[in-house]
Amino acid sequence: MQELRERILADGVIIGKDVLRVDSFLNHQIDPAFTLRMGQELAGRFAGVGITKILTVEASGIAVAMAVGLALCVPVVFAKKKQALTQEGTVYSAKVFSYTRRELTHITVTARYVGPGDTVLIIDDFLAHGEALQGLVSIVRQAGAKLAGAGIVIEKRFQHGGENLRAEGVRIESLAVIDKMEPGVIHFA
Amino acid sequence: MQELRERILADGVIIGKDVLRVDSFLNHQIDPAFTLRMGQELAGRFAGVGITKILTVEASGIAVAMAVGLALCVPVVFAKKKQALTQEGTVYSAKVFSYTRRELTHITVTARYVGPGDTVLIIDDFLAHGEALQGLVSIVRQAGAKLAGAGIVIEKRFQHGGENLRAEGVRIESLAVIDKMEPGVIHFA
Repeated sequence: MQELRERILADGVIIGKDVLRVDSFLNHQIDPAFTLRMGQELAGRFAGVGITKILTVEASGIAVAMAVGLALCVPVVFAKKKQALTQEGTVYSAKVFSYTRRELTHITVTARYVGPGDTVLIIDDFLAHGEALQGLVSIVRQAGAKLAGAGIVIEKRFQHGGENLRAEGVRIESLAVIDKMEPGVIHFA
Repeated sequence: MQELRERILADGVIIGKDVLRVDSFLNHQIDPAFTLRMGQELAGRFAGVGITKILTVEASGIAVAMAVGLALCVPVVFAKKKQALTQEGTVYSAKVFSYTRRELTHITVTARYVGPGDTVLIIDDFLAHGEALQGLVSIVRQAGAKLAGAGIVIEKRFQHGGENLRAEGVRIESLAVIDKMEPGVIHFA
């Protein structure tokens, strides 16, 4: 998506070797109208495959997931990083290691919100090492739902997070794919 | 907002004495089109006061905040519950005790996203004891920004979270106000 690549070049900041800061429009401050356009673009790529539910994980995936849900007219479920008092009944869970936070979290989804009748599209802001995405795929499988694929805003392909899942046949669509980052230079695929 | 009160009565579940589970449409599963309408309603209540920024806290506030941001055409900032590697520079922070999780968190906002030139509308899904709202108000004040007020989806008035802030002159608009909950019965204001 050209607009996104331009926005990354204009506003993105490379931190260290492999961290890209885009918190001016994606994961701390959000540009709502731009987020809506990204959601429409991702929805378009998965049009006609009968999606019944969007699944993401809190917190940075929620705004984009909401935009995709609006475009496809389906509910959005966000996995929780801490189980809430209000999560009653059966819960699906997966372990997710965050490289940017250096911590292991258990993400959970209440079973009543994803089930065997669903065709699920996973949405997230970043795909790097693929830990969050693998956790969400695991939850879709635990639920017995059909997986339509995953829509990602920014994929850092040099961290290889999509390779295993693509090899398993999971369809992953990313709005911007970064092949390489050097000090001050971002190489898109 | 009549549609919200009806949705709460149809889908809300009272847990214990004072917890209301509305995770089928508000804070685990989200109804995007309904969220958009709630955002438009909140935006309408604060129309004409020159809002330049929406401030919320991850995670459940984000979808509603995004809907308000879309309606008012202004950016949304969500306070983080854990400081991210990517948060560089000055950070405003506040301590927030969560009664539903029984834990203290430090919420943070990077200074470059809220400043003295801003008129801020705070958005959140629930107002109960008011801890999160007080933390967000503190951040607006630390930033030297003007506070337009707070827009809340569900206020549980029997937990008195809005009283102190209203006494200080903070304008709080809630789409549904609950005065009392009894087993199986929700009393709206």
